[in-house]
Amino acid sequence: MSQKKTVVRLNDRAASEERLLNAAEELFSKIGYDRATTREIAKKSDVNIALINRYFDGKQGLLIALLKRKMERFKIEQLSYPEEATVTKEAVSYCASKIHGVCQDLSFVKIIFVQLLVDPKFSKKFKEQLTFSQKVNPLFLERMEKFRKAGKLKSSRTTEEICEPLELYAFSCVLFKIIMDNEPKDVVLKNLKNFVEDYIYRFDADRHKS
Amino acid sequence: MSQKKTVVRLNDRAASEERLLNAAEELFSKIGYDRATTREIAKKSDVNIALINRYFDGKQGLLIALLKRKMERFKIEQLSYPEEATVTKEAVSYCASKIHGVCQDLSFVKIIFVQLLVDPKFSKKFKEQLTFSQKVNPLFLERMEKFRKAGKLKSSRTTEEICEPLELYAFSCVLFKIIMDNEPKDVVLKNLKNFVEDYIYRFDADRHKS
Repeated sequence: MSQKKTVVRLNDRAASEERLLNAAEELFSKIGYDRATTREIAKKSDVNIALINRYFDGKQGLLIALLKRKMERFKIEQLSYPEEATVTKEAVSYCASKIHGVCQDLSFVKIIFVQLLVDPKFSKKFKEQLTFSQKVNPLFLERMEKFRKAGKLKSSRTTEEICEPLELYAFSCVLFKIIMDNEPKDVVLKNLKNFVEDYIYRFDADRHKS
Repeated sequence: MSQKKTVVRLNDRAASEERLLNAAEELFSKIGYDRATTREIAKKSDVNIALINRYFDGKQGLLIALLKRKMERFKIEQLSYPEEATVTKEAVSYCASKIHGVCQDLSFVKIIFVQLLVDPKFSKKFKEQLTFSQKVNPLFLERMEKFRKAGKLKSSRTTEEICEPLELYAFSCVLFKIIMDNEPKDVVLKNLKNFVEDYIYRFDADRHKS
């Protein structure tokens, strides 16, 4: 095969994968993961159904690839708020932006949860490729490191250790308070702010000024 | 109907409900909620199947009644550790005991989650009768109030406001770290201890002594 042909084929594959992922995303959130069939996904994306198995190892693999794509995009996305002046304000804004972000993808988040809880095969596949615990957003981490270098974040813990509970807590607020208890988002955000302020207090060298 | 007969009947009903709940609990955790039929539950408990509808409004109602029973028992149970000498130690021990407690009921916790996520009818019924957010354990709250009265817990927040994030965080560790990420329990407990110490620091009047 000539080199040119190989490149074209790789592009073809990337394009087909992209189309399959887009179709799967739409169908999963519209009619649910269980009801969306690979046949429909293939039809909607105009890609041969056999390629779902070849490229993704079936519907489960497609769901995992979709999650990976979301996580990759999330990592390179800019934070949705400007740099704040204090550690406390930065942490509060970050957690609030995280809640807004997850809320935009609620139906997808629910699908992943349910599959992890009910399907041991999916769960195994998932754990081979990803961990569920939200890794701390690298852009947020960078900003917190800047505070540390400026003497504004003080702790014997690593910056990642400090930030990890914030990620988990914000995410849990969405699952338990917003999805499960139907708490209004503004109440959730207000309580989240209190929590973040209390938690980060220990690390904020500026705390007595604010 | 004589008064005596009514009492007997009420006892009969209570006994039948108890037997149905026990059978449901066993079957749900053994073969799963979906696969356990009301027929099997009735057979196992030796109670007429029609009474499941009359007493509990079906299998969903049975699951909710089971959860309520667990929550009631949990409320009156003594805490599994002796009173600690400081606010920080008390909070750490409470959260660890909570993790151990929830871990003893993992299969049930999973069933409740899944039903809340996949079944809008169950979810509606559930919300009419319960909220998911773990209310703070009243015995833990009592111990924290004692610290406050002794001048050892200082804050403008109510004791309940201080404790609520601890409940949510400990519970989230079970769901995300233990169930979903298969993290070893001792690692989870170690990180939980760090988190609790950092969070409670602000409120612990003794913090500079320890």
